[in-house]
Amino acid sequence: MGVDPGLTRCGLGAVEGRPGAPLSLVAVGVVRTGADEDLGARLVGIEAGIERWLDEVRPDAVAVERVFSQHNVRTVMGTAQAAGIAVLCAARRGLPVALHTPSEVKAAITGSGTADKKQIGAMVTRLLRLAEMPKPADAADALALAICHIWRGAAQHRLAEALARAPRRNPAQ
Amino acid sequence: MGVDPGLTRCGLGAVEGRPGAPLSLVAVGVVRTGADEDLGARLVGIEAGIERWLDEVRPDAVAVERVFSQHNVRTVMGTAQAAGIAVLCAARRGLPVALHTPSEVKAAITGSGTADKKQIGAMVTRLLRLAEMPKPADAADALALAICHIWRGAAQHRLAEALARAPRRNPAQ
Repeated sequence: MGVDPGLTRCGLGAVEGRPGAPLSLVAVGVVRTGADEDLGARLVGIEAGIERWLDEVRPDAVAVERVFSQHNVRTVMGTAQAAGIAVLCAARRGLPVALHTPSEVKAAITGSGTADKKQIGAMVTRLLRLAEMPKPADAADALALAICHIWRGAAQHRLAEALARAPRRNPAQ
Repeated sequence: MGVDPGLTRCGLGAVEGRPGAPLSLVAVGVVRTGADEDLGARLVGIEAGIERWLDEVRPDAVAVERVFSQHNVRTVMGTAQAAGIAVLCAARRGLPVALHTPSEVKAAITGSGTADKKQIGAMVTRLLRLAEMPKPADAADALALAICHIWRGAAQHRLAEALARAPRRNPAQ
């Protein structure tokens, strides 16, 4: 399950699959909170929405976009707090949590770390064999995160396996 | 109850009182998480620590330091996430939550928005009639937030009352 964090729109997307096999869409959507609500009410709303998703989707792992402070200074604190709540909800259930940067996601999905939102949306649509592009962009981004996690997780797993199989070098010899 | 948010040290301090009367210390301490733990485990630890405090202290209101992105870029995301969890925990219980900036706290406690940590600690020690300065600085800062909230809240309350008493002007007359 991927989470594209935000206070106004928090994108959520769940994908089933493994590398080298077709991926399939499990669920996609957005949790919204009102800009006129106070911060406490918004964070409670985000938590409730994510908890509902975790209850229904029962994911094996949760991937959250890593937030950088260089981004839009006006909204970055709320984005970081929404991301923190997603990480908290997953960790409370003992689920593995991964953070991927936007460029890691773009590179995994499109082959280019500088792809734009439209390219991401188009590739997500094609990879999941959907009739149309998931909207809003936050929902498509959450699916991209989930796909990135399936692929990167597998690559990291293969690397760990290869290292485990490699002959151990004993520095004393 | 005041919260000076942080992942490594989250300062917590509870103060009882009202403006114009002596203040008294209820509790002071720090929730710590290890820099070697993953983000999920740290956020779960912060949440558990704050929940334990809310259960024991039963505060009327929670004041959290407002985090700005101009601060130390390396730690600001974790600080924002710890602050978000404090706001979430309080809001989930229906407690009023206030955010005060560091300069609002400094100005309320010392009369100067540019006071240093030592001046804050000294004033907190004097205002609460303590034998020695609360340590670490995060704990003293949390008490300063709680005191600032008692005083600022009262000022805002008096202003609201004065406005309510003021004769209504009817624009039609």
